[in-house]
Amino acid sequence: MNSPIGAGMGSEVGVVGAYSTKYEARSQKEAHEMIREVATSVFKTVDKGMSPEEVDLIIVSNYSDSFGYVLHTAPLVASYIGNLRATGFRVENACAAGTTAVFLAWKLLSSGSFRNALIVGFEKMSAQGSSARANEILMRAASPEEYRVGAPFVSLYALIAQEYMRRYGATEEDLALVAVKNHENATRNPLAQFQKKITVEDVLKSPYISKPLKLLDSSPLSDGAVAVLLSSEPRRYTDTPVYIRGIGIRHDYPGVYQRADMASLEAARLAAQDAYKMSGVSPKDIDVFEVHDAFTISEIVLYEMLGLAARGEGYKLVREGATSFSGAHPVNPSGGLKAKGHPIGATGVGMVAEVYWQLRGEAGARQVSGAELGLVENHGGTGATSVVIVLGR
Amino acid sequence: MNSPIGAGMGSEVGVVGAYSTKYEARSQKEAHEMIREVATSVFKTVDKGMSPEEVDLIIVSNYSDSFGYVLHTAPLVASYIGNLRATGFRVENACAAGTTAVFLAWKLLSSGSFRNALIVGFEKMSAQGSSARANEILMRAASPEEYRVGAPFVSLYALIAQEYMRRYGATEEDLALVAVKNHENATRNPLAQFQKKITVEDVLKSPYISKPLKLLDSSPLSDGAVAVLLSSEPRRYTDTPVYIRGIGIRHDYPGVYQRADMASLEAARLAAQDAYKMSGVSPKDIDVFEVHDAFTISEIVLYEMLGLAARGEGYKLVREGATSFSGAHPVNPSGGLKAKGHPIGATGVGMVAEVYWQLRGEAGARQVSGAELGLVENHGGTGATSVVIVLGR
Repeated sequence: MNSPIGAGMGSEVGVVGAYSTKYEARSQKEAHEMIREVATSVFKTVDKGMSPEEVDLIIVSNYSDSFGYVLHTAPLVASYIGNLRATGFRVENACAAGTTAVFLAWKLLSSGSFRNALIVGFEKMSAQGSSARANEILMRAASPEEYRVGAPFVSLYALIAQEYMRRYGATEEDLALVAVKNHENATRNPLAQFQKKITVEDVLKSPYISKPLKLLDSSPLSDGAVAVLLSSEPRRYTDTPVYIRGIGIRHDYPGVYQRADMASLEAARLAAQDAYKMSGVSPKDIDVFEVHDAFTISEIVLYEMLGLAARGEGYKLVREGATSFSGAHPVNPSGGLKAKGHPIGATGVGMVAEVYWQLRGEAGARQVSGAELGLVENHGGTGATSVVIVLGR
Repeated sequence: MNSPIGAGMGSEVGVVGAYSTKYEARSQKEAHEMIREVATSVFKTVDKGMSPEEVDLIIVSNYSDSFGYVLHTAPLVASYIGNLRATGFRVENACAAGTTAVFLAWKLLSSGSFRNALIVGFEKMSAQGSSARANEILMRAASPEEYRVGAPFVSLYALIAQEYMRRYGATEEDLALVAVKNHENATRNPLAQFQKKITVEDVLKSPYISKPLKLLDSSPLSDGAVAVLLSSEPRRYTDTPVYIRGIGIRHDYPGVYQRADMASLEAARLAAQDAYKMSGVSPKDIDVFEVHDAFTISEIVLYEMLGLAARGEGYKLVREGATSFSGAHPVNPSGGLKAKGHPIGATGVGMVAEVYWQLRGEAGARQVSGAELGLVENHGGTGATSVVIVLGR
């Protein structure tokens, strides 16, 4: 709402279309049917129209073929849209696959290598039918040492939470407030997996999975697919594109135990620095945030990494309501991973789609009034890859 | 040996280092240990030395996490080489993952987006322990319709072979000659999985898997890993770089049954056209070929797609010995997928490494004398993605 963005800041690559399935515990469609739905439907969302033949780059984001039983999906997308002349491939960077795809498309478009990119993210996590089996597949994104001891991600995030709470005095109630806020937000989002408010008491009474994290501190297993269209000449396709103003991708050690500060998400801090520097905006300029709340502790630490709060003070933001839908810095108005859902390969693409809708005033009941600048943070594993994107009108 | 390459032809991106494990039926190492070995060892192969800190791009090529049980491998590689500042991700395009990684690195380096790329390809196919289980994982790269009916790749290539043989008069003996040639070649390659000559009679007596393709017409399941280093300033790192002179990546319909000509590999033909056009060379200029002989029929069809033979006459080349080690157009002096092995995510990276060694005169007993121009063809599925790369000194 402040800091109008000048021409020439960041890149001229913009989002010009977005389409998402509802996120669900179990989709009635097979993975390839979900892919087909979003890949073909996204073209209908482009204001001035775009023909599939205008796409010269296809990037598919998917976490594991152990979920959806489908690989080599780029030519599949090409055949579904009827354009075999585009160049296509799939990328994977754990839960950050979707924004890694956006980063690559941005790089390849802004360098003039390609003109228009179709990005398709999907995951069908219900295909395995068992959460124990799903957990083993998820753990393949941790360090080999963490995988070997069988530590599930909730336990790795519990290490982060334990250290954070011990050091800074945050409580289990503070974590619960993140879940309560995001569930409340999701009730306004027809795409969200959960459409049900919860209370702090509900969270605190839910069973511990790995102390201090409980069932209701955790994002669910989800099915879902999202497609977005990016262009290096966005105004050919719409009068109201959403530009990628700044972007950063950074890595950290794969294992939580390998890091100097176990209570931090350093890759996110560095990626945000890069994205802010490139866009020339500061955290307080951002009107709407979509961040990677795979577990509630993650969102609180991210407040600090993204510069919304000083180190050790992130939890105060949620206590004060500053990150609620009507607060000064709305975070996860979509419901976040916690309540909107977390179909891994779709998640980051879905965050970009959500901010695209917010900045165009198309977010319906969950619209953040007058939003002009948005930020996406999407990370993989316990933060060994983080992508931060600043989007602006 | 003819057509010396002028400066400025193609790009200035070059390969400056390469390292490969032996391809084996069963590696003693886990997937992450194979990754670590090649990612760290490749730096020792650079003539003038390269520090891991000089790498700003890491691309991992891997087919399926159902084989190696490891994902999010880019930050793993970053941690192994001690450089968390590089940008990393994994790509997958079925069996063409490795050369898709090379294509992306070339694009990102030649556009000035990055300077030095480390590409790591790996697959540990023995991890599943069962060839029936492995087959289901492989079929995820076919079309959803082919996957649904459970047609293994050998049956899909059998369709190609049946149609090709019916139309052009090639025989099962012709197919066998490809296997015999590539096994003979592999006896000179210490990196090859099979080190054993076979005869036409051996092939013809081996059991049909899907008629006309027999056990000895088929490439094996393999474990292996390869790393290469690419640079946009290759002469900083070696006085004898191997340049990417031309490159093409093309797609076709995922399903064999969807194609107008079932006996063709159209994506390979188009990718070769692109690579020849960019490099300004013609097929007869190429001194050494490494091509995707997942099944023997594939190599014969590729002779035609790559322009070594007219349509319907590819099989005559192998009859005449033109593509043997001492022939006019040596194809797969490494032993090819058939005898060197086919650890999927490593395969395409390994082809580029092999041509790098050939063009530097470092291929030992399998050295093609005086090779100055080489070509790699690597495809995924039954050819829904094909990458062709012309490399030159």
